[in-house]
Parts: sequence; C-alpha cells; structure tokens
Amino acid sequence: MSALVIIGGSDAGISAALRAKEVDPSADVKILLANNFPNYSICGLPFYLSGEVSDWRTLAHRTVEEIEKQGVHLLFSHTATKVDPESKTVTDLDATGKTHTTKFDKLIIATGAVSVRPSFAGILLPGVFFLRWMDDGFSIHRYMIEHHPESAIILGSGYIGMEMADALTRRGLSVTVLARSGRLLKTLGQEMGYLIDNELLRHGVRIVKGIAVTSIEKTGKNLAIRNSQHIPIEGDMVLVATGARPETSIGTGTGILTGLQGAIRVNRAMETNIQDIYAAGDCVETWHHFTKKYTYLPLGTTAHKQGRVAGENAVGGHAEFAGSLGTQVVKIFDLVMARTGLLENEASEAGFDPVSIDHEAWDHKTYYPGATPLRIRITGDRRTHQLLGAQIAGCYGAEVSKRIDLFATAIFNEMTVDSLSHLDLSYTPPLSSPWDPVQMASQAWIKALGR
Amino acid sequence: MSALVIIGGSDAGISAALRAKEVDPSADVKILLANNFPNYSICGLPFYLSGEVSDWRTLAHRTVEEIEKQGVHLLFSHTATKVDPESKTVTDLDATGKTHTTKFDKLIIATGAVSVRPSFAGILLPGVFFLRWMDDGFSIHRYMIEHHPESAIILGSGYIGMEMADALTRRGLSVTVLARSGRLLKTLGQEMGYLIDNELLRHGVRIVKGIAVTSIEKTGKNLAIRNSQHIPIEGDMVLVATGARPETSIGTGTGILTGLQGAIRVNRAMETNIQDIYAAGDCVETWHHFTKKYTYLPLGTTAHKQGRVAGENAVGGHAEFAGSLGTQVVKIFDLVMARTGLLENEASEAGFDPVSIDHEAWDHKTYYPGATPLRIRITGDRRTHQLLGAQIAGCYGAEVSKRIDLFATAIFNEMTVDSLSHLDLSYTPPLSSPWDPVQMASQAWIKALGR
Repeated sequence: MSALVIIGGSDAGISAALRAKEVDPSADVKILLANNFPNYSICGLPFYLSGEVSDWRTLAHRTVEEIEKQGVHLLFSHTATKVDPESKTVTDLDATGKTHTTKFDKLIIATGAVSVRPSFAGILLPGVFFLRWMDDGFSIHRYMIEHHPESAIILGSGYIGMEMADALTRRGLSVTVLARSGRLLKTLGQEMGYLIDNELLRHGVRIVKGIAVTSIEKTGKNLAIRNSQHIPIEGDMVLVATGARPETSIGTGTGILTGLQGAIRVNRAMETNIQDIYAAGDCVETWHHFTKKYTYLPLGTTAHKQGRVAGENAVGGHAEFAGSLGTQVVKIFDLVMARTGLLENEASEAGFDPVSIDHEAWDHKTYYPGATPLRIRITGDRRTHQLLGAQIAGCYGAEVSKRIDLFATAIFNEMTVDSLSHLDLSYTPPLSSPWDPVQMASQAWIKALGR
Repeated sequence: MSALVIIGGSDAGISAALRAKEVDPSADVKILLANNFPNYSICGLPFYLSGEVSDWRTLAHRTVEEIEKQGVHLLFSHTATKVDPESKTVTDLDATGKTHTTKFDKLIIATGAVSVRPSFAGILLPGVFFLRWMDDGFSIHRYMIEHHPESAIILGSGYIGMEMADALTRRGLSVTVLARSGRLLKTLGQEMGYLIDNELLRHGVRIVKGIAVTSIEKTGKNLAIRNSQHIPIEGDMVLVATGARPETSIGTGTGILTGLQGAIRVNRAMETNIQDIYAAGDCVETWHHFTKKYTYLPLGTTAHKQGRVAGENAVGGHAEFAGSLGTQVVKIFDLVMARTGLLENEASEAGFDPVSIDHEAWDHKTYYPGATPLRIRITGDRRTHQLLGAQIAGCYGAEVSKRIDLFATAIFNEMTVDSLSHLDLSYTPPLSSPWDPVQMASQAWIKALGR
C-alpha cells in the first residue's frame, strides 16, 4: 500500500485525492489542509458576499463525509512547513502548535495561490481586505455585519474586482473601482471592454482608470486612497484585488524548480523536477494547449484537471494534462463575457497572422420573446484560416458560456473558421437561429477576408 | 451572365440564391415562389399560434427588400409546373392562370416537404388541419379567431405535435395528444421519453398512446376521432401532425432520380443525376456525417447548409455538404430536449458496439440561485471509446441547446468520450461547474466501463 500525501485541500488537492482512490482503491491517501475548508468553491465567495448565497456551507463542492467516504484522510489545520525529498517526509504544524512528520511514497503539492500584496502603506489597516480563501470571505462578511459600510473602494479590475463590484453593489454599497490601466478586465480583450464599463455604470458603479495608488490612510471613520491623480477617493472599506501569485513557499530549499511568476515547473504528467513529487493547480505553471508553451493562469477548471492528472499518475497512471486554452467566463450584473484561445495580440506574439472581426447577432430568433444581442469576436489565421480565438459578450441567459465552449471545442480540434459552418448545431426559434450566431460570425470573418 | 433559376423560396432556396450572389455577384438569380412568403421561418408557426409571436410578419428571416437588395429576383405566386432538362426550361403558372417559361443554365430544386396525409376518412372536414407552410398557419389562426375552439386533438407526437400541444394549451385550449406508438417524440430516444410525458401532463395535456385512428367524424358541433381502442375522443379542432414527406412532384418525368421516402437523390455537391440540376432542403436525401449514408431528415438547419452549397456550386464553386449529425432541439413548455449523433439502437445498426449511460447533474453550482437538473445520456463505442451520440434534457435557460452543440462539435471531430475531459470549458458558478455537466457525464461513462 503506497502512501500518497497531498498538501492542500482545495480544487487540485481534492481532485488528485479522489482520482487516486478511483484508480487505485488500495492507495493510502492523506491530505494536509492548512484550514478547515476542504474542497470549497472559493469562486463562489463573491456570491456569498453579495447575499445571493445565504449559507457559506453550501459553497463546498463536496462535504467532508463525501470525501472521507471515498477513503481519503483529511487532516484539518495541519499546515505543512517543510518537505524533505531525501527522507521523503512532510513536516506540519497542527492547530495546537504540535509538529508532525509524515512519510510519503508520492507527494502532490497543491498549495494554490495567494493574493498579491501591493507594497504601499496602509495595506494592513482595519477595513482593508483581500479575497482569495474562505477566511478572507469571512473577514469581509464579519466587517459588513459589524460596521455596516455604505461605500467600498475596489483596487483592481480583474475577475475578482469585477465580481465584487457587482456583489457589493447588490449588497447596497456605493462602489468605486480603481483600475491601474485604461481598461477593465484586460484579459478579455480591449474591443469589448466598453461593455463592462457600461454595465458597471448602469448599476451606479464609479470607475476611475489610469490611477496608481500610493497609500491607504485612515481619515476619521473613513479610508482614503492617496493616488497618482490626486483624486479624492474615500470609502468605508477597501478591497485589494490586484491579482494572485503562486503559493510555493513549501518548495523553498527542496530543489523544486520554479519558473514564471515563481510557479512550480511541471511537465504534462504534473511531475516536478524532483522524483515522486508532483504539483498541480494555482501553484504551478500551466501548459497552453494552443501555443505549446507554459504560462501562469490560475483557474479552478485547470486546477481540477491538473489535480486529476497528478492523482492518477501518483498511483501509477500515465495521464497527461492536455493543456489550457485560457477559456474563461465572468458574469457581471446581467452581462456575461467569455473568451477562449488567443486574443489578437497574443496570436501575433505566437507567430500567427491574425485577422479578427466583430459580429453582432441575436441569441435566438427575434420573433420569439426575450431575444438579446450577442457580440462575437473571432480571430483566425489569414493564411491557414485556423480558428485562433473568440470572445463573446451577451446577457445572462443567452447561452454565452456554452457558445464559447463550442469555440473552445473547435479550437481544441484545430478547426478552421470556415469549417464552423459545417457543424450541425441545434435549432429551435426560442434558442438559436438556423445558423447559430457562432456560425454567422464565422461567415462574417470569411467575408471580411474577401472570399 | 449565367441564369440560375431556383424553385422554392423557403430556407434552402433563399440560402442558395444569397450564396450564389455572394460568390458571383454577376449571376442572374431568379426564384419561383409558389406563395408570397419568401424566407419565412415556418419553424416559428407554433409560436405564432400560441400567441407568443403577435405579428406573423416577424417570422420572416429577411424582408423581401433585404433579399432583393442582394440582387435576387423574386417571382411571387409562380408555381413551377414542369422542368425540361433538354431545353433547360422551367414552366410555371402565375396567380392569374398565365403560363411562363424560363430558360436556365443551372436549376436548383428547393421545393421542400409537405405534410403526410393519412388515408382515413374525415381528413378534409372543416376544423381538421395540417401545419407545414404559412397558409396552414393562417388557416388555423383564422379558425381559432372565428370559432373559438375550446379543445383540440393532436394526431402525432413528433416535433410539430409536441410544439402545438404547448402552443394550443398556452392559447387556453384543452389538448389531447394521440400517439400511434407507446412513446412521444420517438426521435429523442426512449430513455428520456417520460420527461416529455411529465411535462405535458403537468400542463394539463391528455395523452393517449398506442392508438390508431380509423376516421374523423363530425358529431354535432364536435369532431370525433374513431380509433382502434374505441376510446371516446372529441374536440373542437384536430391537428394532423403525422410527419412530412418530400415534395418532388416537379421532378416527375424529368429523369431525376429519387430514393428514400421519395426524396431526390443528390451527391454532396447537391447535384442531382441530371447535369446542371441541383436540389437542396427538405426535398432531398441527406448525407449523414457520421454513418456516411443517406437518410431522410428534413430540418431547417440542414436546408440552410445544403442551399448554401447548391448556390455556391451553381455559380461555379466547389462546396461540399459536410453532412448532418441529426442534431435537434425542441422546447416544450419549460422543458428543452436535444440530441446529436446516434441513439444506441442506431449505433448498433451502424456497426458500433455502443455503451450508454444516463447521468444527472445541475446546470450550474447549486449554491447560486436557479440551478436546475440536466439529464445527459452519452453513447460511446465500447472498444474505441468514440463518442457516438448524446441526448440532454433540462429546463429552458439551462443551456441545453449549446451543450448538445458541444457534443455535436466533439462528434464532428471524432473525439472519444474520454477526451471530453480534456476540453478547457468556461466556468463561473452561475453558469456551470469546474467540470461541466457534459464532462461529468463523460467521466460517468468511463466509470461505467470499469476503468
């Protein structure tokens, strides 16, 4: 019976454990958790803070009982402090301050990511928060219950910043978003950026762009944001949502190699450079299916996939991570925005000759009630017509998410833009058109090339 | 300037005309229409009759102006009566009874389908209707306005029968559905059949199965359905929705070959056996992308694709119809059901060794409001694991349609069931799970095989 130890009980760690037990039910699988929240959907925290989710316990993907029923041993509040590849042991500290040492045959590091902490002053003031783990969520929730803040300032305009602008507005707070650059949610491409601005403005969110924060200060009962533009910005609470970086401190001194942004280097079997030590999830570099290069792209979907591969291989399997396409979707108020594959500039950098078009179409036949417009951007290669990437923006309920998945499936299979018209897609007037908007956009792309 | 004549102005005919003008703007393109309704979305008629669509004019995919602006000549109420391949002419009859003869260089037959007319007595009684073309829709609408029927009997349980059960119930009629077999909507596979039954029953529709109609009779002010089970069935109106057959009478005496159910035989360039004569849409046999055989499967999506290919080739192009996967979706009340690829029995007939599983999953994370269950059936080949087919049932709004399209895209690309887990699909808690239900179902399929 081989001993598999996993450090971390979030998406990657739990996926690895469950897959390992599935492939080899005899494996002895232990997870060391720094906290008491195994397998929580931390992506759900904004919806808990908005009030849409009333009980945080429902955020668990699985209950402790469900995990343990699969034969996985969960060690709560056991913070791993040291890995020794020579003696094949992990040392951890439990909640009582006691130290333990666990032998492993195979080890999976799934320590996730932590919030990036900017270096300006005031970051530790009461009322200033980060949002990554369950504890962060509880802190914000407690503060809102106890202090009844009426206004919030959000630093950063990535997914968490945008979802929290929605969440806190829903909660009744007056929200200001500060963006360092001239664009919100840069990862979705600039052409659709104005749609996010409009959606936020429509819901009363104030947006300040091109601003660098120099410090956060306490002024009376408020928090003031000192900034490069000398704009007076005050609020009752501040959320710092300026990104995430891999949590890899456990690897220090072990000889485990790190790369991009300090993430652990792994191959597609999720092996580190050290024999019998695997890593998966937000703490590792991610193989991009399309560019065939590594990147740092911490996403829950990827963590699940990588964890599954690591877990299978740690018990003798031969799985391979197929790679990410950078597929992402976000819901901000009533707007859903999604992307897959490469943006035009990324495609250029990857050596393609990208051509992009923007196409607008109704999500279903307009004669049937409730039709809403979809905005679709397609990027393809001028010479080969290979589909390189797509973005879609539309209303919640307009099947934006699964339409981007259709593009993702097409890109995964290296389809050309032209061949999208060959797909036999489903149609009924309340749900689409005889040519799905995805196909209409692909035909517009071909027309734009002059064919 | 070559003369292209198209017989029929519904989906296939208009698609052909527009594509021909797109590829060769100099082409002289004429469409002979038997009626005055070019490019109408006849799939939308049930929604007009339900009252959800208030103005039938909105059913037009395009206006006459939009079509003519592309340089296409529309000849209204010109019913083609004869094609002469020797002299390359089409003869037609206009609304005034005048005969015309038009020369063509290339001809496209896009005459569509007509309702199957059962042979029992009473089929022509007032109050007995079919539903295929705009005129049929107008007749039903007029009857409802003038006679205020309170009850309706629907013969047949295909798409039109099911959509009309929904439509007439919405309209306030008491509806009875008579099915010849023991199952409703047989095309969707038997495993999910009970969901349709439940949805109809929940909305007060009466269902009688395993019944053969022997005649329709007028009894007082009602219509009575005499039947094999001697069940008393009466109603104020009757809709006969027992299927469609290809309308190919124009081919009689021309030497144009027909095949399955009398549909015109075409190759994948949409050419008939007669030089310079093409055919497309509900009047032709359809190439199945998967089985590599011809079938008869009249669908609007296919008509659009075939029309586009015929139009392109008629002006010198070299397009090929990629084939149908039999992808279909229907909305009945709040239930959406969809399929793509092969059902288990079809897969067996096609020489595969099919294994199917049924899997239930929530459309998105249950902690976010509004999650509804999806029922997914996957069929794959036991030996090669090739994905052969899928069916999904779920609520309207649960992205059933685009999830079936994801399967359709996977089948088109000959993916295995296993590889669905490699797809990088989009995730946010209001719209999916870290593994999309489609992927969870594929993992359940693999587990069922004992891997």
